[in-house]
Amino acid sequence: MGHIEELSETLRKLRELSPLVHNITNFVVMNSTANALLAIGASPAMAHAVEEVEEMTSLAHALVVNIGTLSLPWVEGMRLAVGKALRRKKPWVLDPVGAGATSMRTRISRELLGMSPTVVRGNASEILALASEDSGGTRGVDSTYGSGAALETARELAKLHGCVVTVSGAVDYVTDGTRMLGVQNGHPMMTRVTGLGCTASALVAAFLTVQPDPVLAAAQAMGVLGIAGEIAAERSAGPGSLQLHLLDVLYGMDDQALSRLRMD
Amino acid sequence: MGHIEELSETLRKLRELSPLVHNITNFVVMNSTANALLAIGASPAMAHAVEEVEEMTSLAHALVVNIGTLSLPWVEGMRLAVGKALRRKKPWVLDPVGAGATSMRTRISRELLGMSPTVVRGNASEILALASEDSGGTRGVDSTYGSGAALETARELAKLHGCVVTVSGAVDYVTDGTRMLGVQNGHPMMTRVTGLGCTASALVAAFLTVQPDPVLAAAQAMGVLGIAGEIAAERSAGPGSLQLHLLDVLYGMDDQALSRLRMD
Amino acid sequence: MGHIEELSETLRKLRELSPLVHNITNFVVMNSTANALLAIGASPAMAHAVEEVEEMTSLAHALVVNIGTLSLPWVEGMRLAVGKALRRKKPWVLDPVGAGATSMRTRISRELLGMSPTVVRGNASEILALASEDSGGTRGVDSTYGSGAALETARELAKLHGCVVTVSGAVDYVTDGTRMLGVQNGHPMMTRVTGLGCTASALVAAFLTVQPDPVLAAAQAMGVLGIAGEIAAERSAGPGSLQLHLLDVLYGMDDQALSRLRMD
Repeated sequence: MGHIEELSETLRKLRELSPLVHNITNFVVMNSTANALLAIGASPAMAHAVEEVEEMTSLAHALVVNIGTLSLPWVEGMRLAVGKALRRKKPWVLDPVGAGATSMRTRISRELLGMSPTVVRGNASEILALASEDSGGTRGVDSTYGSGAALETARELAKLHGCVVTVSGAVDYVTDGTRMLGVQNGHPMMTRVTGLGCTASALVAAFLTVQPDPVLAAAQAMGVLGIAGEIAAERSAGPGSLQLHLLDVLYGMDDQALSRLRMD
Repeated sequence: MGHIEELSETLRKLRELSPLVHNITNFVVMNSTANALLAIGASPAMAHAVEEVEEMTSLAHALVVNIGTLSLPWVEGMRLAVGKALRRKKPWVLDPVGAGATSMRTRISRELLGMSPTVVRGNASEILALASEDSGGTRGVDSTYGSGAALETARELAKLHGCVVTVSGAVDYVTDGTRMLGVQNGHPMMTRVTGLGCTASALVAAFLTVQPDPVLAAAQAMGVLGIAGEIAAERSAGPGSLQLHLLDVLYGMDDQALSRLRMD
Repeated sequence: MGHIEELSETLRKLRELSPLVHNITNFVVMNSTANALLAIGASPAMAHAVEEVEEMTSLAHALVVNIGTLSLPWVEGMRLAVGKALRRKKPWVLDPVGAGATSMRTRISRELLGMSPTVVRGNASEILALASEDSGGTRGVDSTYGSGAALETARELAKLHGCVVTVSGAVDYVTDGTRMLGVQNGHPMMTRVTGLGCTASALVAAFLTVQPDPVLAAAQAMGVLGIAGEIAAERSAGPGSLQLHLLDVLYGMDDQALSRLRMD
């Protein structure tokens, strides 16, 4: 099977399972992340309190931990949820939003990276910050580097931590330290909508529930979001319309749309 | 007067009063709930801190307590706000999001149910979880049952707690334990937009400020949202468009749209 | 240069710099504020934890402090961030959401007003509440007064605190206690979209990074938002569409659109 047929099959399974994705994520994107998961056919749940996160992770098919609007009480919930995901052998995705921007984010991201995420997804600056104090390229939560600049670091982090690392950008790279997939779908206007990186991480989690190869799952999720963004951008006068059409396109994503996939 | 004329009259009063609705609600839906209240003609306020919730409830015409992204400090604010609403004889609506999914949510929902809500609104799984440990049908925050499965439980809970219980679903049921109204408006695509159940609860609160019969108020609110969802879905290629058109239709809701009401 | 040419020049500089705007803001508007900043060409960052706010403010070109869903732990983060902004001589904007509605909000707003904001932006009720216990006109977070009612108070507050005060309304007034600019752009339907006042405050912060005259910067930001709202309303059947078109228009704002500016 080629990449397009494989993606079509994964998406069919995802819609059949309608996996429950437990998100411990940031305040900015909770609504848009939930809507993207619903649009693609998954079921989102948001819960962060230490008293209930483990139960929610137990119910879920996958977990997303996103540090976008971090505070210490939430970190404790993240640790508990990740521990539960590991014990139950459920996939979990780390989104180290703003790693490198503040020392707290860098520190917490690295601690979480040490807890065996299935996939880490970040922009180039964030991925670089996970590896080195001196990355200096995170500007708030946006990257000042292209994704290619973090390719080697991604490979090394993946090997070191036994996880898959995804670097988002004009080209999205996905590696487990040995294999490397590149996804070229997407549109520049997507950078003018907040939280599409966070949406990507949530979609990766959803895809991991039905695609056992995490490199392929992550690349497929990036591909689907990139395709949706491309099609949406063609219909949009600006980022307001893009956000709306993106959800419509995810919802209606069919083989014709999937044929746009540019993965290798 | 028939149901349609009564609804038209309630809506006219609501827009005239522009009631202030105090929401202690979850992070996912705060924006969409506020926009729905504004679109229908009400005025939303969000406040949760123990230091100010009582004052905000005093100012408001109605209160909504929604446990969607629960944590213990918020629960204390919920208790204080509910206490104030009761003392000031203001209507309050309980939305037990995810009751049954985690023991914390089930426990807190039941505690709040014991505090004399005017109306409880949930999906079938949530309503069943309020009554029995063994419901087992909540899957994250989505129900695995149709609303009819919770009909008898809704009636019993309403009698037991002296409140109105609303079960959302393809048909929305509203009961005070004796009377029962069913509302058949709505569209399946609405389940692919996050937080429309939460929006329903907020609209119920708004309608309670101008319709003294809480059974009718809840049924009217469900009817208006269902009608708006139907019309919006007809104009929408997917859930992104639906969310947008829903607000436009709520804003422009007139007697022609209201004539779609299917309530009995 | 006339006002329109000056605004065009400020906007060009803003898009060139793409200033990082650090927002400590409320849960309701985080998503829509981030999207508005991205649409106009700025870069948003949201961070509130005491452990990291100072670092984030240091990275940013400007800071917004918005008390919309206040709680005490966040207030501590606000104080630290403002302190850092002052030491680094970065502009900061205070949005006293709901001042006058609860004593906590009034108290915290006044404390923050005493910390030398560059610009304060609020509706008439909020501005009146900053000056007097007896304003009594805040109804939740919406004003019961027109902006003109707070004109004299705005002037006095500006003089007393050495800051610029902006009163939003059908006409937006901006004063440093001596000069006074009025902006007449906007559309009534904008009041039916939640958080456009918060968006205004965030845009003011972005404009302050490239326009050194804070009176002009605030008036220009109000003008751009008002123009975007006008154009968006012309294309919209209701507030759902307005929100979408507003982002598209901010993104595409050009000299033709700017020629609608009514500032004097």
